[in-house]
Amino acid sequence: MASKKWVYTFAEGRADMKDLLGGKGANLAEMTNIGLPVPPGITVTTEACIQFYSEDRQFPPGMEEQVRETMSTLEEKTGKQFGNPDNPLLVSVRSGAVISMPGMMDTVLNLGLNDDTVRGLAKESGDDRFAMDCYRRFLNMFGDVVLGIDHDKFERILSIHKDKAEVQYDNQLDAEQWQAVVVEYKKLIQRETGEPFPQDPMEQLFKALYAVFNSWNSDRAIVYRKVNKIPDDLGTAVNIQAMVFGNLGNDCGTGVAFTRDPSTGTRELYGEYLINAQGEDVVAGIRTPQPIATLKNEMPAVYEEFDRICGLLEKHYRNMQDIEFTIERGKLFMLQTRNGKRTAQAAMKIAVDMVNEGLINKEEAIMRVEPAHLDHLLHRRIDPDAKLDVIATGLPASPGAAGGMVVFSSDEAEKLAQEGRKVILVRTETTPDDIHGIVAAQGILTSRGGMTSHAAVVARGMGKPCVCGCEAIRIDYDKELFSVNGLVIKKGDILSIDGSTGQVIMGQVPMIDPELGTEFRKLLIWADEIRTLGVRTNADTPQDSIKAREFGAEGIGLTRTEHMFMAQERLPIVQEMILAGTDEERDDALAKLLPMQEEDFYGIFKAMEGLPVTIRLLDPPLHEFLPNAEELMVEITTLKLTGGDVVELQQKEELLRKVRSLSEFNPMLGHRGCRLGITFPAVYVMQARAIFQAVARLVQDGCKVIPEVEIPLVIEVKELTYLRSLVEQTATDVMKESGVAFEYTVGTMIEVPRAALLADEIAAGADFFSFGTNDLTQTTLGFSRDDAEGKFLQHYTEKKILSDNPFAVLDRKGVGKLMEMAVKLGRGVKPDLLIGICGEHGGEPSSIEFCHLVGLDYVSCSPFRVPIARLAAAQAKVKNS
Amino acid sequence: MASKKWVYTFAEGRADMKDLLGGKGANLAEMTNIGLPVPPGITVTTEACIQFYSEDRQFPPGMEEQVRETMSTLEEKTGKQFGNPDNPLLVSVRSGAVISMPGMMDTVLNLGLNDDTVRGLAKESGDDRFAMDCYRRFLNMFGDVVLGIDHDKFERILSIHKDKAEVQYDNQLDAEQWQAVVVEYKKLIQRETGEPFPQDPMEQLFKALYAVFNSWNSDRAIVYRKVNKIPDDLGTAVNIQAMVFGNLGNDCGTGVAFTRDPSTGTRELYGEYLINAQGEDVVAGIRTPQPIATLKNEMPAVYEEFDRICGLLEKHYRNMQDIEFTIERGKLFMLQTRNGKRTAQAAMKIAVDMVNEGLINKEEAIMRVEPAHLDHLLHRRIDPDAKLDVIATGLPASPGAAGGMVVFSSDEAEKLAQEGRKVILVRTETTPDDIHGIVAAQGILTSRGGMTSHAAVVARGMGKPCVCGCEAIRIDYDKELFSVNGLVIKKGDILSIDGSTGQVIMGQVPMIDPELGTEFRKLLIWADEIRTLGVRTNADTPQDSIKAREFGAEGIGLTRTEHMFMAQERLPIVQEMILAGTDEERDDALAKLLPMQEEDFYGIFKAMEGLPVTIRLLDPPLHEFLPNAEELMVEITTLKLTGGDVVELQQKEELLRKVRSLSEFNPMLGHRGCRLGITFPAVYVMQARAIFQAVARLVQDGCKVIPEVEIPLVIEVKELTYLRSLVEQTATDVMKESGVAFEYTVGTMIEVPRAALLADEIAAGADFFSFGTNDLTQTTLGFSRDDAEGKFLQHYTEKKILSDNPFAVLDRKGVGKLMEMAVKLGRGVKPDLLIGICGEHGGEPSSIEFCHLVGLDYVSCSPFRVPIARLAAAQAKVKNS
Repeated sequence: MASKKWVYTFAEGRADMKDLLGGKGANLAEMTNIGLPVPPGITVTTEACIQFYSEDRQFPPGMEEQVRETMSTLEEKTGKQFGNPDNPLLVSVRSGAVISMPGMMDTVLNLGLNDDTVRGLAKESGDDRFAMDCYRRFLNMFGDVVLGIDHDKFERILSIHKDKAEVQYDNQLDAEQWQAVVVEYKKLIQRETGEPFPQDPMEQLFKALYAVFNSWNSDRAIVYRKVNKIPDDLGTAVNIQAMVFGNLGNDCGTGVAFTRDPSTGTRELYGEYLINAQGEDVVAGIRTPQPIATLKNEMPAVYEEFDRICGLLEKHYRNMQDIEFTIERGKLFMLQTRNGKRTAQAAMKIAVDMVNEGLINKEEAIMRVEPAHLDHLLHRRIDPDAKLDVIATGLPASPGAAGGMVVFSSDEAEKLAQEGRKVILVRTETTPDDIHGIVAAQGILTSRGGMTSHAAVVARGMGKPCVCGCEAIRIDYDKELFSVNGLVIKKGDILSIDGSTGQVIMGQVPMIDPELGTEFRKLLIWADEIRTLGVRTNADTPQDSIKAREFGAEGIGLTRTEHMFMAQERLPIVQEMILAGTDEERDDALAKLLPMQEEDFYGIFKAMEGLPVTIRLLDPPLHEFLPNAEELMVEITTLKLTGGDVVELQQKEELLRKVRSLSEFNPMLGHRGCRLGITFPAVYVMQARAIFQAVARLVQDGCKVIPEVEIPLVIEVKELTYLRSLVEQTATDVMKESGVAFEYTVGTMIEVPRAALLADEIAAGADFFSFGTNDLTQTTLGFSRDDAEGKFLQHYTEKKILSDNPFAVLDRKGVGKLMEMAVKLGRGVKPDLLIGICGEHGGEPSSIEFCHLVGLDYVSCSPFRVPIARLAAAQAKVKNS
Repeated sequence: MASKKWVYTFAEGRADMKDLLGGKGANLAEMTNIGLPVPPGITVTTEACIQFYSEDRQFPPGMEEQVRETMSTLEEKTGKQFGNPDNPLLVSVRSGAVISMPGMMDTVLNLGLNDDTVRGLAKESGDDRFAMDCYRRFLNMFGDVVLGIDHDKFERILSIHKDKAEVQYDNQLDAEQWQAVVVEYKKLIQRETGEPFPQDPMEQLFKALYAVFNSWNSDRAIVYRKVNKIPDDLGTAVNIQAMVFGNLGNDCGTGVAFTRDPSTGTRELYGEYLINAQGEDVVAGIRTPQPIATLKNEMPAVYEEFDRICGLLEKHYRNMQDIEFTIERGKLFMLQTRNGKRTAQAAMKIAVDMVNEGLINKEEAIMRVEPAHLDHLLHRRIDPDAKLDVIATGLPASPGAAGGMVVFSSDEAEKLAQEGRKVILVRTETTPDDIHGIVAAQGILTSRGGMTSHAAVVARGMGKPCVCGCEAIRIDYDKELFSVNGLVIKKGDILSIDGSTGQVIMGQVPMIDPELGTEFRKLLIWADEIRTLGVRTNADTPQDSIKAREFGAEGIGLTRTEHMFMAQERLPIVQEMILAGTDEERDDALAKLLPMQEEDFYGIFKAMEGLPVTIRLLDPPLHEFLPNAEELMVEITTLKLTGGDVVELQQKEELLRKVRSLSEFNPMLGHRGCRLGITFPAVYVMQARAIFQAVARLVQDGCKVIPEVEIPLVIEVKELTYLRSLVEQTATDVMKESGVAFEYTVGTMIEVPRAALLADEIAAGADFFSFGTNDLTQTTLGFSRDDAEGKFLQHYTEKKILSDNPFAVLDRKGVGKLMEMAVKLGRGVKPDLLIGICGEHGGEPSSIEFCHLVGLDYVSCSPFRVPIARLAAAQAKVKNS
């Protein structure tokens, strides 16, 4: 029986075979087939890797034979032979996942070298030093990656030899000195593994293959996938490719480049290269490389061809490309192309430019921007008027500004972040082992490495501010400090960085709200043309309302009146109302609150003229407005023990009694929402009156107002019927008193499972529904958010019991199922029922997509997320039509 | 157009027309048509009453004409004329609801009397005194019931006249003296209403009709319907019936009787009568009447006929009858028959006897007992070995024993009961205005009235202990005390009563668990033959398990392991476990708990040999096992201020930190249930080990054990999968260690909406489901039970937003909908999935019916409710097949 095809030559592959060949392999095949200069190679499929894991890490049957066979086609194409000392074929072995995971998995270069073939390489290249350099690199990589020997052990040997030779840099060692290093490296391998370094190239190859498959499940790869939400079961492909050398002399080199600037999106080649170097040297950030433009002068012909190929690849892929290349003795070789990661800013510019260039259409442009990455663009940047104490400037590697406590290790960054601290992670350079620290930090500052160093790439991917290669700072990890121009910055000191300028600034710098750039605006206009889901905002003040309107909000989906009750000057009146002993006292307090609430609503309605405004009546339990019982207990005990004022003691004891009588075991499920309206109707009547008096004044002034009165926490239509009648009576009263007629609607939140289950009955009494998915998530899952996030939710996501924090990403299976039921039941009774969502999910792209899918009319989110929601709504439409 | 038929003569009606004619009217018609001596009459329908309310309390069109017409047929039958001074027709006007509401609505007797007809009555009866007595009674009733004049005002006039005549009893007044009373009564009416007493009989009739319709919505009728769950929209019929007189002399009388003893069920006539009295005298409990047996000697012929008719009615209705009769000059008239109210004890005996007598079948017998009324039979009675300080003995009016604080008003009884106090309501007699007090009290003690007095009837209906007519006690309402044989008992003193013996006892008497009587056992055996729903028990100890098994439990549906953690000697070890700083410390504490838990389970499994036992792993949040934070704060403050021991202070502060770190905002939705198992797997592993070690020991001893391990609070099948694997591993370990093989299943509670919504996925990982409807109600409604019941739930049931307390009676619309979904989804995946319920609803009859309807396999309830559940399950089957 013929075994499954586990191995493809580049000539057999295509770009659309990514799932099978991985991104790198598919694109190498594609480039090969469109005639670009790609060193020949083969790809072992992701299926082989998946099979490998399903069979307890055994190569699938037939795979090894297929590798051997296809390796011989490689020999034919190159005219070299694997293991032939006279004309040795050397190969690189690289992982290539379906979804790019830069730097996460293992690579081995120069494979095929041994004590014999190294001589062939020397002869062929005419360069003994080069051949030995290659050999020692191979031994180091193979030892580290395949045999699991600590990289530092190789470095230590190298250091000793450099010291002995009294040189500073690697490239100052000569062939003989490298030869000595090679001998030591081989001894190290023998010592560490108990076996000699394998001289057989085919054995090297399969060992490397095994190591790459294994690296799919390395700790760092698992963390990366978790952060980037990449499934664990995709597996990686492995590419085995004939080596070309960028380190054969000064007519050689290696580099990486983007077809457009990945930070700004500007349409110009953007990248770096190193003369006389092998690929890993650039990415690792060890030597600081040259900008790509320099190549134009140094090797004009190569540059010209590279520029032509870049243009061709952009047209071919219809996207900005991230390209790796090597120049061997003046000849250009393409080693990789893939869609380039970019900042949100660049993503928008590139998308808009490409539409203008006719490369893509508007729908495609919309899909090119990850809404979640826009977040930082929509938050704060450094106030341009601020006086900055700039202590250093590095490379502006990932835009945006951030401030926080300085920390020097990723573990510490994670620890402090979990305690709620904002931190800036400071490292000489970062490695894939720092992923968790970068995730935890507000921003990253490194002293070494360029714009394509690990720190820079990862930070841009996450949309985090990053300043790289800030060589002025000297880090002392032991003392946990860095010095810069005579200044000493210690762990815990506060620092700000500006990833857009590269500035490092003392202290926490004042920051300002962002505005939408030209491309952003254009993209959002396109999004608005495409999307069918409305976008409103959650806003409790006229200021927020104005900001949200600027950001394109089409109304207010939620005004929380309780925030107004919390204002410093009002709290005493609110407490008066709650502690009132008689109806008269309560009415007095409410009468004082009425004009204040009326002004609140007046301002918001005015800011939102012509757009709908949903105002939710009082929702939280009353004891939230009272002092804390524990503190009162301590005060009382103190007064008692110190013989304090008797009257004060009695007052405090009376207050404590009231606080106690209002305190609840589970306030979230307690006396709140419309339950307050039912037990204290006067409070809701006061709020309704404030709303309608504000409306009447505005209508009188010719202002168009669309008020929607919202009753929270309904579980039963009879609650709604009862409270609705209070609201309607109040509206009638205000119309009579003011002589002004106005329109309004009365609706409800769907935020308790019973409301969703009985949505048909409830719809009969409601003009609109608004899903309160924060509370609906709490009740549907039985998760108190305040308790879950601190205590057990992390265990749930880590153990993959839940794929996401359900308070961040809507739980489609549970909460979503109830929402679908409610929409169906509600619209079954009232086909035109207005339905929105006002939980925090209303600003989260995947949740927005779900809202689109179940047919909501709008999402409502915080003002700064309105643009994200507009874009996400358009993407939901494009994705699902 | 002919108007609707609003009025039926007795000859036109039938027993099955209850909905239209009310219970009394339908039965009067039935008795008329089977040839019993019923005074002729007509019935105004319930539809007329409903119409009356829908038309703003106007008589429906055509009704008045129909009444006039049918009244003339009455005149034909009796040969008397309405308003004819020579031969006056007098009638009674009585309400007659569809569902009996004894004493709740108004009655007017002797209607048709006026200044002229009273003379005709005198002539006809040959008794002036009698005629005037009738007239003054009519004026009093009409004035009170129809014209709304306070009854006391009539009483006061009567008192003055009795004083003037120097007599003690009403019947000592002569015709002339009554004449004087009549004059004063008419003056009173003129004074109070501004109009003279209406002399026109037809006017009297319509006014009375209006009053009876109105009384349907009197406060007391509304309360009664609420307590007895009678719909408000049924309306009442009105019966207008020719008067017969029990007060024409000593060959007259009136009485009420049951065809069997309503307290014990014994098959013998049981009732009371008064010679020379009108009907209301007996029921009102004002004069203490003669037992019915006496009639045998006093009027043998009448007794014989009555006995014959009683037998006939029982056969006809196939149920025990509650009969009202009047003897007019030696002739027996039947005024009412209806199915008699009875104690639970009597209901069972009658049902069983009637099956034996061949009157009814087993299914009917099952339906004759109200499961909720069995409650008190299944609780405690006075310990027969107790030394009792009996201070008085009254009539044993409603069986069962109770103890509590003495109170003298129904308002006070209600108030104290709401504060959680147990009270005994002590009154001279009760009236329909005392309903709320009877509802609130543990038991009722009256100094006047017989076995059919208001207090007795109502208490029996509610299954509450009642001692009536305890004439030895002298109540002083003003001083709030009663005296008895020189003793003085004040408000607030503790008293016990035994409604089965009539004893009144000082202090709180020791009580003992009940046992099932012969009839009860028989009925339950029949119930078991009929029902398809299983009945298990919730039990946490071997003692409870044994009790439940005696009561017929078919297994344990819920063992709560946390109660075992709370035991005094274990709590310190549990705290050790929680406060453990290291894994070793925690493991040490768990190792100490293991043998204790093993013994717990051993005992329970043994008690339940051969039956399934569901053991729920630890459920409540850990901080429930720790001291209270507020108390610690006070202790710490005190130590600080008083310069207490520094070490102690530090320990307390450390403890407080831990308590704080474990405390939660909403513990109900917090870190509990299987979330503990996921974050602290060692605890669940210890419990699983304790279970399986106990199982292994028993299996080794040849004992059949059926353990079901239950994982609480699951929301997602992955929780179950993870924890199940721990349980299975532990079982495998124990089997290996012990060398004993045993069977077990692993299932889950469905108690969070998400679990119900995803029951198909969860079923794939579960061997059984058990609905935890306490928590499911909390989450589905967003109601914290602890908060709702004290704070707002009462408003909800009072405003009829919810028809019942959803924690007592399962909310079919909301919670029930989720249950139905879960059953359908679960069985869709596993058709034989075992599904039960272990919330408190498992012992509540209406909820049990719902469980039957949705196809659960069993209900599980507290041991004392097991018999109720067995009966309710059988009723559910009979009702729905």
